[in-house]
Amino acid sequence: MNQIIETIFNHRSIRKFTEQKLTQEQIKTIVSAAQQASTSSYVMAYSIIGITDESLKGHLANISGQPYVKDNGHLMVFCADLHRVSQLATIEVKEKITESVETTEQFMVSIIDSALAAQNASIVAESMGLGICYIGSLRNNIKRVNDLLELPNHVIPLFGLAIGYPAEHPERKPRLPFNMVYHKNKYQPVNKKQFKEFDETLDHYYQNRSDNTRADTWTEQMIRKYSRQERLDVSPFVKDKKLNKR
Amino acid sequence: MNQIIETIFNHRSIRKFTEQKLTQEQIKTIVSAAQQASTSSYVMAYSIIGITDESLKGHLANISGQPYVKDNGHLMVFCADLHRVSQLATIEVKEKITESVETTEQFMVSIIDSALAAQNASIVAESMGLGICYIGSLRNNIKRVNDLLELPNHVIPLFGLAIGYPAEHPERKPRLPFNMVYHKNKYQPVNKKQFKEFDETLDHYYQNRSDNTRADTWTEQMIRKYSRQERLDVSPFVKDKKLNKR
Repeated sequence: MNQIIETIFNHRSIRKFTEQKLTQEQIKTIVSAAQQASTSSYVMAYSIIGITDESLKGHLANISGQPYVKDNGHLMVFCADLHRVSQLATIEVKEKITESVETTEQFMVSIIDSALAAQNASIVAESMGLGICYIGSLRNNIKRVNDLLELPNHVIPLFGLAIGYPAEHPERKPRLPFNMVYHKNKYQPVNKKQFKEFDETLDHYYQNRSDNTRADTWTEQMIRKYSRQERLDVSPFVKDKKLNKR
Repeated sequence: MNQIIETIFNHRSIRKFTEQKLTQEQIKTIVSAAQQASTSSYVMAYSIIGITDESLKGHLANISGQPYVKDNGHLMVFCADLHRVSQLATIEVKEKITESVETTEQFMVSIIDSALAAQNASIVAESMGLGICYIGSLRNNIKRVNDLLELPNHVIPLFGLAIGYPAEHPERKPRLPFNMVYHKNKYQPVNKKQFKEFDETLDHYYQNRSDNTRADTWTEQMIRKYSRQERLDVSPFVKDKKLNKR
């Protein structure tokens, strides 16, 4: 097993960090690694906002509801960015380019580009002995995050990435069994027996982990989560920012 | 510099592979690595379809227009998958769950989850001496790919990933300068001088690379690309699949 496989299989999200800040050199390495990821048609349709302003971090932590958004070694916000390419438009092609940028196709491209970059950043951070946690909960108030970061049209915040020296060592969380995720040549819906087996695996994990033990299953978690509609403001917000329009 | 940083900074997309197929063990390692990626609220909202059927590969290669979709060591298609969680709904909460699954917020979650998993797969493949290439051009006819893979509602194909033993050694392609991608505390639009510098860097790369030399800049490429609207069928297709609806 090589070092990369080891690092990837050793991943757990870290939600408690020491006070030690990342150095400029570490940040540079992590961001540069993010930039090496593949990108659709060479568009590189993302921006990374590094947050060092403590008051700004406080606001973002309030939106997220998570203390580790404030207390970490460094915080980045990954944004889907189609503003950069639309800046290139000359008067002759401005309308055409804006129309292209506003399609659902390009919205997908910008999300995929951002996530590929973020995962490179995460793995490199972990390889340096740091821990990471993605912060989707910035979308609890996506408009406010947008305003705090002064994002122009065609740019939206997707998620944060908290990075730092781990001050906790949680167990690895189980993943869906291979056969529930990997299909051969055509899609195969999951059967009841497979769900039940994974529920048992997960219940065992929750009952036996070192911290915050409880009885729970994947089925119950997912039903709880999806039974309330969340973040219905995201869709109109995205369209207001002139993305995902057609 | 550790092995992970080295692998990530050594990335180039490979579009020509030897005939050697991946072993089942290699595929298992790559998919399992994909599964270790972070996932929003533990939803794991993606599926991976491994394509081994030669006739199916031929159809996908025709859609993509790229020979390496057929000629590779293994081909995977990454799909945003919210069908799996909707399968869990009991009669009492079926309507509520379907409504949640169909939001733009969950559409974004499923794309991000898929891309994080794919990037883990890519890095692990590269760490094993394999090359990879993402295939966004499957979205040239997203409906046809969907039909070929028999994807149910709430599942759509996002992109392919061709993997195999490299039969070419292209140069590393430049990336945008650090300061055009990384912002401090708030968004900073790119200035004309920065665009011009990157255009010069890229023109130098194109004129001097070992294969397929040409004169070109990033500005010209992006204007060419975005001046024609592409894949306008993606948006209605996604909505037909009951995603990104509200």
